[in-house]
Amino acid sequence: MDCSEQLTEVMVKSDTLYQGKILNLRVDLVRLPSGRTSTREVVEHPGSVGIIPIDNDGNVILIKQFRYPVGEVLWEIPAGKLDPGEKPEDCAIRELEEETSFIAGRIEKVASFYTSPGFSGEMMHLFIATDLIPGTAEPDQDENIKVFNLSREAVETMMTNGEIRDAKTLLALVTVISRGIF
Amino acid sequence: MDCSEQLTEVMVKSDTLYQGKILNLRVDLVRLPSGRTSTREVVEHPGSVGIIPIDNDGNVILIKQFRYPVGEVLWEIPAGKLDPGEKPEDCAIRELEEETSFIAGRIEKVASFYTSPGFSGEMMHLFIATDLIPGTAEPDQDENIKVFNLSREAVETMMTNGEIRDAKTLLALVTVISRGIF
Repeated sequence: MDCSEQLTEVMVKSDTLYQGKILNLRVDLVRLPSGRTSTREVVEHPGSVGIIPIDNDGNVILIKQFRYPVGEVLWEIPAGKLDPGEKPEDCAIRELEEETSFIAGRIEKVASFYTSPGFSGEMMHLFIATDLIPGTAEPDQDENIKVFNLSREAVETMMTNGEIRDAKTLLALVTVISRGIF
Repeated sequence: MDCSEQLTEVMVKSDTLYQGKILNLRVDLVRLPSGRTSTREVVEHPGSVGIIPIDNDGNVILIKQFRYPVGEVLWEIPAGKLDPGEKPEDCAIRELEEETSFIAGRIEKVASFYTSPGFSGEMMHLFIATDLIPGTAEPDQDENIKVFNLSREAVETMMTNGEIRDAKTLLALVTVISRGIF
């Protein structure tokens, strides 16, 4: 028996309590490795992408948008949910254009990670987008997104001041800065 | 009218659909800045802490645990939910001892961020713990956590190989490595 098997929890019973637009909620009864049972609350999510767009002047493109679940306007990298059957790379190109109107000439995978594995199945795929071409798409008015091109110095100040409070955006920026990409 | 006001969405009606152990689910009707209405699915979460423990040999302490929502054993920094009224710093000290048995001689705040602001209200507070003293607490058998002390070289290899797939853990490690703390 390897380490993973010793740690695994097995589903005994599963109840879907809610099926919504962006998530489903399931509460499962599970058997622990000790033989005891417990419940697990699971938010099902289709997965998502985040895009780090670097413009042709070497600035990063960030968006500002109101996030209802936290009640704040946040600075974020462009991001969005996977459509059914959509490849993460295609989703990254689509979301970048929808949110910023830029078309990515080059896109490169950086990492994939779970955003909140204690209660959510969401996996996010992170990409760097470069060789940006201005597109014709206008960001949807109802999305209420504002787009900004920011220098590395500006972004570092915002990170130091605690102005960037979104996990994926912090991870994206620390990664490109530490790799010397931005 | 400043930028935040232009972007804000206002609650019209709120329905709590589930109240559980670690999360609640709410579906709200909101008024958008355009005047139209839409629904927002919100996972309420009490907030959490993550701890980056650096041992007296300069290694980082990571844990391995099975995460039922993603169906995988993940490498993670120690972390946990805030108890009602608990200060993040007190929670960080408590969770570190519960999960690794180490008592933090020194604890320092690194950042606070939202883990998934598109659907969840969870804010996580990240700390570095140093001057570690071995405690007497035994990790709870039902938590099924395995504890490892890892060098920077080992961790960098694991990150490059995609073996670390938890967002808070990637953010924590990239941050301490880029600051020269680890």
